[in-house]
Amino acid sequence: MKLKVYLSGEIHSNWRTQIIEGCKNLGLDITFSSAVTDHDASDAAGDGLGEESNSFWRDHKSAKVNAVRIKYSIENCDLAIIRFGEKYKQWNAAFDAGYCAALGKPYITLHDESLVHALKEVDGSAQAWAQSPTQVIDILKYLTTQA
Amino acid sequence: MKLKVYLSGEIHSNWRTQIIEGCKNLGLDITFSSAVTDHDASDAAGDGLGEESNSFWRDHKSAKVNAVRIKYSIENCDLAIIRFGEKYKQWNAAFDAGYCAALGKPYITLHDESLVHALKEVDGSAQAWAQSPTQVIDILKYLTTQA
Amino acid sequence: MKLKVYLSGEIHSNWRTQIIEGCKNLGLDITFSSAVTDHDASDAAGDGLGEESNSFWRDHKSAKVNAVRIKYSIENCDLAIIRFGEKYKQWNAAFDAGYCAALGKPYITLHDESLVHALKEVDGSAQAWAQSPTQVIDILKYLTTQA
Amino acid sequence: MKLKVYLSGEIHSNWRTQIIEGCKNLGLDITFSSAVTDHDASDAAGDGLGEESNSFWRDHKSAKVNAVRIKYSIENCDLAIIRFGEKYKQWNAAFDAGYCAALGKPYITLHDESLVHALKEVDGSAQAWAQSPTQVIDILKYLTTQA
Amino acid sequence: MKLKVYLSGEIHSNWRTQIIEGCKNLGLDITFSSAVTDHDASDAAGDGLGEESNSFWRDHKSAKVNAVRIKYSIENCDLAIIRFGEKYKQWNAAFDAGYCAALGKPYITLHDESLVHALKEVDGSAQAWAQSPTQVIDILKYLTTQA
Amino acid sequence: MKLKVYLSGEIHSNWRTQIIEGCKNLGLDITFSSAVTDHDASDAAGDGLGEESNSFWRDHKSAKVNAVRIKYSIENCDLAIIRFGEKYKQWNAAFDAGYCAALGKPYITLHDESLVHALKEVDGSAQAWAQSPTQVIDILKYLTTQA
Amino acid sequence: MKLKVYLSGEIHSNWRTQIIEGCKNLGLDITFSSAVTDHDASDAAGDGLGEESNSFWRDHKSAKVNAVRIKYSIENCDLAIIRFGEKYKQWNAAFDAGYCAALGKPYITLHDESLVHALKEVDGSAQAWAQSPTQVIDILKYLTTQA
Amino acid sequence: MKLKVYLSGEIHSNWRTQIIEGCKNLGLDITFSSAVTDHDASDAAGDGLGEESNSFWRDHKSAKVNAVRIKYSIENCDLAIIRFGEKYKQWNAAFDAGYCAALGKPYITLHDESLVHALKEVDGSAQAWAQSPTQVIDILKYLTTQA
Repeated sequence: MKLKVYLSGEIHSNWRTQIIEGCKNLGLDITFSSAVTDHDASDAAGDGLGEESNSFWRDHKSAKVNAVRIKYSIENCDLAIIRFGEKYKQWNAAFDAGYCAALGKPYITLHDESLVHALKEVDGSAQAWAQSPTQVIDILKYLTTQA
Repeated sequence: MKLKVYLSGEIHSNWRTQIIEGCKNLGLDITFSSAVTDHDASDAAGDGLGEESNSFWRDHKSAKVNAVRIKYSIENCDLAIIRFGEKYKQWNAAFDAGYCAALGKPYITLHDESLVHALKEVDGSAQAWAQSPTQVIDILKYLTTQA
Repeated sequence: MKLKVYLSGEIHSNWRTQIIEGCKNLGLDITFSSAVTDHDASDAAGDGLGEESNSFWRDHKSAKVNAVRIKYSIENCDLAIIRFGEKYKQWNAAFDAGYCAALGKPYITLHDESLVHALKEVDGSAQAWAQSPTQVIDILKYLTTQA
Repeated sequence: MKLKVYLSGEIHSNWRTQIIEGCKNLGLDITFSSAVTDHDASDAAGDGLGEESNSFWRDHKSAKVNAVRIKYSIENCDLAIIRFGEKYKQWNAAFDAGYCAALGKPYITLHDESLVHALKEVDGSAQAWAQSPTQVIDILKYLTTQA
Repeated sequence: MKLKVYLSGEIHSNWRTQIIEGCKNLGLDITFSSAVTDHDASDAAGDGLGEESNSFWRDHKSAKVNAVRIKYSIENCDLAIIRFGEKYKQWNAAFDAGYCAALGKPYITLHDESLVHALKEVDGSAQAWAQSPTQVIDILKYLTTQA
Repeated sequence: MKLKVYLSGEIHSNWRTQIIEGCKNLGLDITFSSAVTDHDASDAAGDGLGEESNSFWRDHKSAKVNAVRIKYSIENCDLAIIRFGEKYKQWNAAFDAGYCAALGKPYITLHDESLVHALKEVDGSAQAWAQSPTQVIDILKYLTTQA
Repeated sequence: MKLKVYLSGEIHSNWRTQIIEGCKNLGLDITFSSAVTDHDASDAAGDGLGEESNSFWRDHKSAKVNAVRIKYSIENCDLAIIRFGEKYKQWNAAFDAGYCAALGKPYITLHDESLVHALKEVDGSAQAWAQSPTQVIDILKYLTTQA
Repeated sequence: MKLKVYLSGEIHSNWRTQIIEGCKNLGLDITFSSAVTDHDASDAAGDGLGEESNSFWRDHKSAKVNAVRIKYSIENCDLAIIRFGEKYKQWNAAFDAGYCAALGKPYITLHDESLVHALKEVDGSAQAWAQSPTQVIDILKYLTTQA
């Protein structure tokens, strides 16, 4: 089985690389997509359309440009991995999870046990909760190669 | 115009009551729905189905029972108001926003200016950003009564 | 909250009556629907369209007439309760569960612990697993009346 | 015509191999998919995510991991073959049939005459009832090669 | 059960009246809809929009006005009865059947045995084939009143 | 037949009133909806959410508030009447027409002959082209009352 | 532009070959699909599943097997050409047209002027009415190659 | 990321070429589609189906032939660029925008500041407003190549 996997959420650790490299090393037939993960580039996504004095509108323009890629990635994926770290609000990750849920796109959450209670609604609609990239890789291997 | 409005998010201030009472005082033809907002009752939603020693599963069972009502409320609403407070993660509110966005249900966010950057993706798909219940009431009045 | 609940599955015990009466006694605002539960009437649903010498076609005609009501009931419900008893194959109940799952209609399974392993896929897509009509009534009460 | 065929149900006989090999020998342009059919691997699908003392949750976790593959396979197939054997409950096969029916995915059932009455609802929504893998192969040949 | 039934097809016999009156006499909770059945009025549906010298465009305008009502009736019905008589092409009835099939709206065909072969594709997607209005009434009674 | 009709477009003549009054006088069972037609109120729809120095953002906020009502009206209507006058760009009317077309909502255009060539794509997806409110009333009468 | 075109209807003249060859000669990037057009093979499509003494069921089984291919072809096409000849009822062609209309698949009808009145509803939802295969080829050429 | 981009609107300047060439020069993995942009060919799209004395029907036939390509292009694109120039009504561009909005296809508008007020509803549902082809190219580059 060939899968298209969307990686959503936290950009401060290298969990994306771990999953992508891990799957690559196993030779799994998986294509990964992601929002722009360069924080500064992402914040500036709409700057080329004209400067804004009001920071709400600067954010708004960038968010809407980024949404084109995010929406495309979710709607074209077969499975999403949604990562929550210890820090920051990461409302965009929860937003992506809700978006997946409404579309019927299965997703796996990836977070520490400390976040279990706060993420209960997000985990409640997930297909699985993983605590490490290795667990995610194992599931991806199982899904795509097990007879 | 008659509207069904779903109120999502923060349960520690009385914003729901303000909006509901405000609309009632204006005689607007609006029906409101909400997830269970009694925190303890919500956490215990699944307890009647059998005790769990593992807190993940207790949360999981309750979240899935609550999801029946939340999903029903979102799918049957015409508009959602999604409230983020200063404290707590409130990932369920962002999850609801993503769910609305994917279904094409319009929503208005309600939060302070301090959260603008953290909520840019959520605001990016919203129809409006309000900073007070009064602003929300004004929009609801406009939508349902303006000729 | 007002709910439309579809009751699917086993017809040899009085679980439907227990749930309907229980909710009625509590004054819950719930409308129930069900397939035809009179076994003989159900098997004969298509007989008026002409006799069949071949039992496959007799069953086929009746099943398709009954499907009009079942499909209508599922597509118009907000929640399904799907009951599996100890005896019989009850493939129609599992079929209804799959139908619900694909449409995104939430359902609660109702069965004894002895069936847990055999029903793992059906339970896997359910919002809850109940072991008694009383538990179902409690959830329905919670969903429709809890503030 | 090129078809993607999902094979669902019984894992105790070699009906999958018969169909796959039969189509291969005829040079038909058909891609097959299936849930994991290694019984032990399937039951253990979620074990890597952490041990469970409660067997319900072990089954639940595995079922939800497996559901990612099953859902993917059904949603991406053009036709499903759904096999019921004499033994076991096989509620997952009936669940898959209901899932297909709700999505409008055509399916063919494969079972002995003895199961006709018990499967009348499942057969009622099927495009055909076959009694042997050979019959299935003949239909697949007809569908993909007949001028 | 309350049903909305759309009556499609032949306008030269009184089958609509028979079904409507029969259901009324039985006190069934059924609402019926239909395309305009006054032949001349139907053909002239678009005439008020301006005269046409070319009969293709006269027909075209009328057909598109009528389509508003037909489309509305099909999309809002729970079940369609599609009647084919001995005479005329009645392509609009077959068109309605295909429209129902694609939307997943169940329909029952009503026609004589002589038309069986010609209607095999239309009957193949139907939930039942009836040969008389009485049979249709019996099914409607069964669907809406049987316990 | 009971219809919900959305009236879109030009706000400088009294075509809405003519249609609404005309249908009322005929006792037709039709409910009408419309975007806010008070030009100043419409332009100021978002002003209560905070002042904008940049006119693009003022317009943007108002347009998105108005969109809640427009989207609701289109998605809940059975038929739209889309009016183009001689003056102004009226891109919102054409936008509504495209929105209707994509949702499969039937619409009737209402405009003078002079606009035929410019509106050919909009008329190409319409169910009818009317040149006067009287013609629209006649069609609405036909659709809802003709036997 | 690359198109997938489904050819539906009459099987007694060589219109399919004319269109396919005509497009091939022009080097157009078009893939064609069709139901089985060998009349005897089509009628016998279900015979391998077991003999039927009742001709209704023989037809029924074959029609449902053929429906797998027809449904697949329509749902995977970008455009359908629907041909009506002078003879026969051809209700399957009108059924296909209705199926296309409900799915929003554009179709072009191909028939003589003599059938205009009888086909007004089918033509009313069509994108074009052609009277010869050459006209169809010209449109296909225009759609796929015009700058 | 690989994108399919539909270019809609004004045909009197070379904005399409600028965008296509600009993306080509950057080596972006983007496929472009467009309605027929040769004005005379577009107006004559339906002429081969028979002459019309009435210009409304000539336009109508051509518009419906062109709609096959436009509908296909929109439904198969990932993103649309919708261009409004200073002259002409360009209702087809606004129609395309509404069509995109209803389908959830993201689009970017491309127009001068002078049109901001007139296009507020169209811009209100857009992901971005660009004022030059260069800005569009920059966004396309960002979306498809930024890490």
